[in-house]
Amino acid sequence: MNHIPSLAEILNAHERIKPYINKTPVFVSESLNELAGCEIFFKCENLQKIGAFKARGGMNAVLSLSSEEQKKGITTHSSGNHAQAIALAAKTVGTKAYIVMPNNAPQIKKNGVSALGGEIIECEPTLEARETTVQEVIDQTGATFIHPFNNYDVIAGQATASVELIAEVDDLAVIMAPVGGGGLLSGTALATYYLLPNAEVIAGEPEGAADAVLSFKTGKIEKAPYIKTIADGLMTNLGDKTLEIILQHVKDIITVSEEEIIMAMRLIWEQLKIVIEPSSAVPFAALLKNKERFKGKRVGIILTGGNVDLGKLPF
Amino acid sequence: MNHIPSLAEILNAHERIKPYINKTPVFVSESLNELAGCEIFFKCENLQKIGAFKARGGMNAVLSLSSEEQKKGITTHSSGNHAQAIALAAKTVGTKAYIVMPNNAPQIKKNGVSALGGEIIECEPTLEARETTVQEVIDQTGATFIHPFNNYDVIAGQATASVELIAEVDDLAVIMAPVGGGGLLSGTALATYYLLPNAEVIAGEPEGAADAVLSFKTGKIEKAPYIKTIADGLMTNLGDKTLEIILQHVKDIITVSEEEIIMAMRLIWEQLKIVIEPSSAVPFAALLKNKERFKGKRVGIILTGGNVDLGKLPF
Repeated sequence: MNHIPSLAEILNAHERIKPYINKTPVFVSESLNELAGCEIFFKCENLQKIGAFKARGGMNAVLSLSSEEQKKGITTHSSGNHAQAIALAAKTVGTKAYIVMPNNAPQIKKNGVSALGGEIIECEPTLEARETTVQEVIDQTGATFIHPFNNYDVIAGQATASVELIAEVDDLAVIMAPVGGGGLLSGTALATYYLLPNAEVIAGEPEGAADAVLSFKTGKIEKAPYIKTIADGLMTNLGDKTLEIILQHVKDIITVSEEEIIMAMRLIWEQLKIVIEPSSAVPFAALLKNKERFKGKRVGIILTGGNVDLGKLPF
Repeated sequence: MNHIPSLAEILNAHERIKPYINKTPVFVSESLNELAGCEIFFKCENLQKIGAFKARGGMNAVLSLSSEEQKKGITTHSSGNHAQAIALAAKTVGTKAYIVMPNNAPQIKKNGVSALGGEIIECEPTLEARETTVQEVIDQTGATFIHPFNNYDVIAGQATASVELIAEVDDLAVIMAPVGGGGLLSGTALATYYLLPNAEVIAGEPEGAADAVLSFKTGKIEKAPYIKTIADGLMTNLGDKTLEIILQHVKDIITVSEEEIIMAMRLIWEQLKIVIEPSSAVPFAALLKNKERFKGKRVGIILTGGNVDLGKLPF
């Protein structure tokens, strides 16, 4: 797709990926509502295939290719959840996934890709090496590159989490998501704009990766003043496609400290009894930091994933 | 109730408590199935009210009292999930819960009871002191004592987890639960006997609290050779009521080591993305230890609870 997805295209994406993804549950907690002073509906994408919402975008992008393109394989560079999403999608359509990973990527991430049948190609841990290596794969195989977020089919796929949330929960006044590269946030913003135009979309971002909040002010792709956060899924800058949608349809971006992220993460583990990764806790942390703003409202929060190293917990 | 619950009485218990408890979801994991060599259906009682199946038994016992009895209040002694279950049930019917707790009970457990409006009465940390203190409460208030497991109304309530599991998942060949005092196990065994008579009920028990496996052999209530386990919900001996049902309707009890419990717990956290307490992992550990026995079968496992101190994880 070469344009911002329409409502029809997002709903088509949902029909397309439905057979291959989980319709994730929405959890509520009386004690968290009491603590927050509003009604929160947590969309549990940590319970999605591969443990993260990225399964949606990767699946939609791969299923949207022609069968000719699919045959030649898929490639991407990622050390995170997008790598597994592409491996799963390639496996689903019976083709090869060539995943370029930095040679210092954690073994657990490599194992996840291998378990799904993805072929790992290692490179030096620089963006330049990653891009060069992907280009080599494309030259050799004819595989299609699928960007982790700056891709309209990926954005349409990520939007389907909010499609499900809005269909299941009435009268949401706010929908919240974290922002890294902006694939989920722009999808969330589009789905909300089309299906629930009176609701606000508000993002959470770590202070230690505060590029999007800056881009949101200047209207250009900015770098974060510094990068240091436990929310390792949110370290990326926006892309031009995600930025444009975010500027149009997102109401606000709230930054939170590391302590606030860890506290919010712990509360969700303790009260909802689910495992979420630090990135997932960022919007809830933003809400807790601004209780007055959300007081008495019905708020949807997308919990993005649950892939966390249990040997390295912050509590 | 003064007799072993009939099928009708268990189904009545289910109708009675339904408005006040969660119908917990059943989770599956392809990777855990692959690892185990069978199909496992996890009944997620960690997502139950108060974070544990105990909400079922406590609720049924309190709702089964006459309104005259309810008015005088409820009492029990417990430092664990049963305390919160009784506090919740008492709150639900609008009466008082007098919870006798040892003065060395963790603050987090006390907070849980207080948050539900339960009145905590502290005593010395001995069984004798607990029983004496409960008797004083009864003498002063006329409150009804509800035993955590050796009570047929409690057993009927715990049986409802399997009623839901059997209704939702077809063709289970085995249902597994951990065994501490035996309330859940005897309820599970009864529901399975009535509703799925060809299925086997198999329990898991820690080697470090191996009283039930001994009782299962001798037919009498036995003490564990030694008590030392991370599965702190399973340290109790059986009662006469639970023992009788277990002897009749349980096929086997399998013991597991501490390492096996921790490994099984970690696998469930990692793959299902849910928080479970160590006791919950014991049946899955027993299954993994005996893969041949379960090979290719459809196995239901009751995950009993998710109340765990995140500051004291074993990994």
